Amino acid sequence: MSTHTDRLHDRKFVRTFFTTPTAVKGEDDSAKMLRRAAQLSGIEAPDVWVPDNEDATAPSMRDEGIENIIDVLSEHGADVPGEIHPRVVWHRESPETRYQGFQQILELADPENGAVEHLDGVVIPEVGDIDDWKKADEFITIVENEHGLEEGSLAMSVIVESGEAELALGDLREEMGKPSNNLERLFLLVDGEVDYTKDMRAITPTGELPPWPELRHNTSRGASAAGLIAIDGPYDDIRDVEGYHERMTDNQAKGMLGIWSLTPGQVVEANKSPLPPKNGSWLLEVDDREIELEAEDGRYVYEGDAIELEEAADDRYRLSVGGDEQELDGDELSQELLDLASYIPSLNDIVDSMEEFEAAKEAGKGAIAMERSATIAIDGVEVEISNDRMWDEATYQAAQTPITLFQDVYENRPDQHEDLEEMYGEDLVERAMVVG
Amino acid sequence: MSTHTDRLHDRKFVRTFFTTPTAVKGEDDSAKMLRRAAQLSGIEAPDVWVPDNEDATAPSMRDEGIENIIDVLSEHGADVPGEIHPRVVWHRESPETRYQGFQQILELADPENGAVEHLDGVVIPEVGDIDDWKKADEFITIVENEHGLEEGSLAMSVIVESGEAELALGDLREEMGKPSNNLERLFLLVDGEVDYTKDMRAITPTGELPPWPELRHNTSRGASAAGLIAIDGPYDDIRDVEGYHERMTDNQAKGMLGIWSLTPGQVVEANKSPLPPKNGSWLLEVDDREIELEAEDGRYVYEGDAIELEEAADDRYRLSVGGDEQELDGDELSQELLDLASYIPSLNDIVDSMEEFEAAKEAGKGAIAMERSATIAIDGVEVEISNDRMWDEATYQAAQTPITLFQDVYENRPDQHEDLEEMYGEDLVERAMVVG
Amino acid sequence: MSTHTDRLHDRKFVRTFFTTPTAVKGEDDSAKMLRRAAQLSGIEAPDVWVPDNEDATAPSMRDEGIENIIDVLSEHGADVPGEIHPRVVWHRESPETRYQGFQQILELADPENGAVEHLDGVVIPEVGDIDDWKKADEFITIVENEHGLEEGSLAMSVIVESGEAELALGDLREEMGKPSNNLERLFLLVDGEVDYTKDMRAITPTGELPPWPELRHNTSRGASAAGLIAIDGPYDDIRDVEGYHERMTDNQAKGMLGIWSLTPGQVVEANKSPLPPKNGSWLLEVDDREIELEAEDGRYVYEGDAIELEEAADDRYRLSVGGDEQELDGDELSQELLDLASYIPSLNDIVDSMEEFEAAKEAGKGAIAMERSATIAIDGVEVEISNDRMWDEATYQAAQTPITLFQDVYENRPDQHEDLEEMYGEDLVERAMVVG
Repeated sequence: MSTHTDRLHDRKFVRTFFTTPTAVKGEDDSAKMLRRAAQLSGIEAPDVWVPDNEDATAPSMRDEGIENIIDVLSEHGADVPGEIHPRVVWHRESPETRYQGFQQILELADPENGAVEHLDGVVIPEVGDIDDWKKADEFITIVENEHGLEEGSLAMSVIVESGEAELALGDLREEMGKPSNNLERLFLLVDGEVDYTKDMRAITPTGELPPWPELRHNTSRGASAAGLIAIDGPYDDIRDVEGYHERMTDNQAKGMLGIWSLTPGQVVEANKSPLPPKNGSWLLEVDDREIELEAEDGRYVYEGDAIELEEAADDRYRLSVGGDEQELDGDELSQELLDLASYIPSLNDIVDSMEEFEAAKEAGKGAIAMERSATIAIDGVEVEISNDRMWDEATYQAAQTPITLFQDVYENRPDQHEDLEEMYGEDLVERAMVVG
Repeated sequence: MSTHTDRLHDRKFVRTFFTTPTAVKGEDDSAKMLRRAAQLSGIEAPDVWVPDNEDATAPSMRDEGIENIIDVLSEHGADVPGEIHPRVVWHRESPETRYQGFQQILELADPENGAVEHLDGVVIPEVGDIDDWKKADEFITIVENEHGLEEGSLAMSVIVESGEAELALGDLREEMGKPSNNLERLFLLVDGEVDYTKDMRAITPTGELPPWPELRHNTSRGASAAGLIAIDGPYDDIRDVEGYHERMTDNQAKGMLGIWSLTPGQVVEANKSPLPPKNGSWLLEVDDREIELEAEDGRYVYEGDAIELEEAADDRYRLSVGGDEQELDGDELSQELLDLASYIPSLNDIVDSMEEFEAAKEAGKGAIAMERSATIAIDGVEVEISNDRMWDEATYQAAQTPITLFQDVYENRPDQHEDLEEMYGEDLVERAMVVG
Repeated sequence: MSTHTDRLHDRKFVRTFFTTPTAVKGEDDSAKMLRRAAQLSGIEAPDVWVPDNEDATAPSMRDEGIENIIDVLSEHGADVPGEIHPRVVWHRESPETRYQGFQQILELADPENGAVEHLDGVVIPEVGDIDDWKKADEFITIVENEHGLEEGSLAMSVIVESGEAELALGDLREEMGKPSNNLERLFLLVDGEVDYTKDMRAITPTGELPPWPELRHNTSRGASAAGLIAIDGPYDDIRDVEGYHERMTDNQAKGMLGIWSLTPGQVVEANKSPLPPKNGSWLLEVDDREIELEAEDGRYVYEGDAIELEEAADDRYRLSVGGDEQELDGDELSQELLDLASYIPSLNDIVDSMEEFEAAKEAGKGAIAMERSATIAIDGVEVEISNDRMWDEATYQAAQTPITLFQDVYENRPDQHEDLEEMYGEDLVERAMVVG
């Protein structure tokens, strides 16, 4: 069963954590959703699939849920392209619930049931202090021993949805090394903001979830310090695609590259989100809003009203930004626009820059200037802007994160090769796989 | 004296922490403010009243302050509707101040002085590491023993106003269980941002206090993990009622439902703030500003200039939001406005939703869709909008926080029954008391 | 060598942490930049100068770098007005790099090389857990012992650029007291956001660094709790002076008064930033933007378009703020403008207020109202505004931070006396040195 450990340590990044009810009451085929989710592939299939025998499934249906997981995994498990980590029940304050969770894992991992060879691990919700995490770990160790699995071969992911679990994130690195536990099996640290909000007794006027930036930071930091992977919780306004994207962008700036997905539509968005865009784009920032410029015949055209530009006499220009007017010469104008502009590099741009830096390093240089220039058109007036950024080893390594993620996806998800090649072209995919 | 423990554990929420000088120099009746505060009742009386023998009282008046507290408590203590927790002196870096604090507690709790039966606990300012908290706890244990009070019967609240006290918040849960202390007496964790700012050596251009979001998060999380109650520090621009409200709304989204009050006016605002509103309201968000719509004949009317709407030919509409114009059909228009709209539910709405979910649960359903619809009028054009939100057990429990607070207030503050019934009506109060 | 310890504990504040490459490949004089930096003085010289033998210097040049540091310190060290703390190599995950770091320190501190008497300490990058910090501390202890230096006389500063180092910030206070280490030598806690971003695997669309507010808070709090000094990392858009200032203002509100400087230009800006301004200024806030008013003949004139004011009949006024119009009487108008206004006090204002409070305290008062009034002119209409702020001991102490910093600069940087006197005038400098 060493395949578990091997497979587990293959993933350095997880983009999607997709939960599916394990049994739906009153349906002829109570495992229908489970069966459908098991058959997703390509960009529609998640990196981690979570048959959810906790909140997504009614309490009275959970025994049937475990049977459904076993059936569906036996039948379709071999074809699931991502990892499979069912969520069982658990609660830091209920020994009854914890014992039920133990029994569920015991059942799932029983070789006689034929599902264990497709089982990568389990997800434990509602954990508390680190000592509570150890209780779950110990149950999994016992399960492994009972069923002849290698110790540590079943991964354990947790949902961080209480103040004490958030505090435990700071203890992980130290506790994971201790001989009396197998916490090295830890895999994902997943924020659960609904229950966390309840546990923190927070209130917002509209009933929306608070943003909890500190929780997400602490989860991301805990993952970084302990070599684990941080995942944000569910975004429950499932029609709000733009809001989901904004949340992911915010998460990514915190080092949290994965997110919970509640629907197949969210899986697709979340699979694509941390990948660099196909095409680069220039933005201008006015009044704290960023407006993307239209690429047209090699120029980038601003079409809003907040910036106005016209030529004045004597090679001078009148520039008005958000109502503030200035008269500038050509160099000043270029400088002023450069301050407002920023560039979002494409995958191709990132690969180019990395290759350029790697060549420079081989030639013995420690730092080089990367130039980026463009022609920006506002009200018909064209302005050249150009910026230099110093790249040293640290810049290079920080820029590498999206590339490492890309490579991790490519290596672990052969079912997405076609999608990636369609998005970026074969040549670029090849170059992105060898750089870094 | 077991009444202390009983009463202490009654409160799950504290809205107001109202400090009053214990003695004012040069006044004929130096206890006048204390006497007046002791006689507040109803919505004007705080949940926790703090005769403040530290910063609010001049150092030379503090002996007199203790005598005043004893006098006023003996006389009026029985009628004070909230709890009484005087603040004594303490400093993590001064054994002299700590010994003074010990003597003050010894005096306050002396049964011969006749105040102790109204004394719920004491507030310890300027604490440091957890070991410093233990010193205060030990003094209180000694006081309890000397005066024949039950161990742990006097509550201890602390002011978190140093980096080391903030760090100690992470140790509470673990330390509170140890047999060599009585830290279970802990009650309120109160942020003290003025001294914290000094201790952190922070500077702002205008001299205003920094917002310290991380401190407030850590205090709230510490309270959540250790079963305590988090209170934000003083808002010292006492004329700025709007600012006080914004601060409280921000705190509530962090799980910090109580706040320091410096004046009777602030007490009233803070008592009301975490209670749900009497009437629900619809908001539209434009350019990061939320505008409340006017309820008029069952419609919600937008009266600003930032959104413009007119009918065009062929059942289409022209909608302009913050200068961006779109032409939309009826469904698109409704969807667009729904994205801009949010609803602040009333107490009645929350009780309705909870009752609906409880009924569904009894009927065997785990999740139901809650619909909320309205007619919005902009420039005379009426648009129907309607949104669905999925409620499951977790949503239900998170929505319950304001109701639990309401019930806690109602049970512990009979003096506010009249105010609550006046605000909400008797029927609604009754329903809110049985739901959940 | 006890001078090290003495000097070390002299600095309570550090404004500037200026790194300089120790050797530049292919230059005739590879130490040219080092030599130039050593000769800076006055407002152009940093509080802490860091000959950087790590990232700023190519790996192949680092042996030469150490020789250059030794040469330049022997020659110019006595004249360097700030402290000197070279950065050596180190990595929590590489024993090879750590051993190289040890050898570099051994070399730098060898009395035969003649540099040690000008060496105040070393900077250790890429630290991990607190146990990793102890490894560096132990090497420095061995170096001190080998070279006959007093134990603890060489300061140690660290770059916090990993999740585990951020977590270690919470352990410092406890660990620094232990007899088996000399961590009392710790001096600066410096954030390194480029490598931190890599370590946290964060991504931003443009490749800019995330703002990492929690890291900066935790560093500042760690410094406060352990009696150390917090420094923010490099701001690498070196032409963006305004952005550098905004970053410093944001840092200062977090208690982080020092910042990394990459260029002599940044050193000058960072040296001045935490000092109070020469002249006070009034601001009006409209739509979240603060506009500074022009001082003209004792009035403060608003010259923008966002606020409009005109007199109406019957001593009433029409005030329009960001499009919202109101009709007000004189008192209401004054109150309305007071709500929009804020004042940035000058050094002189702060000294005045402190002197006033000190006089009141001597006269036996614990709290006094400080009044600040001004005539504001909008569209030719003049309005008097006046605000009161209560000052008590805590307010006084919090206001004192910029003065304590000023005094610390004056005492430790005689080479900046002339600059300070030019900025503020001799009289004010004298008063600022005796207040508090």
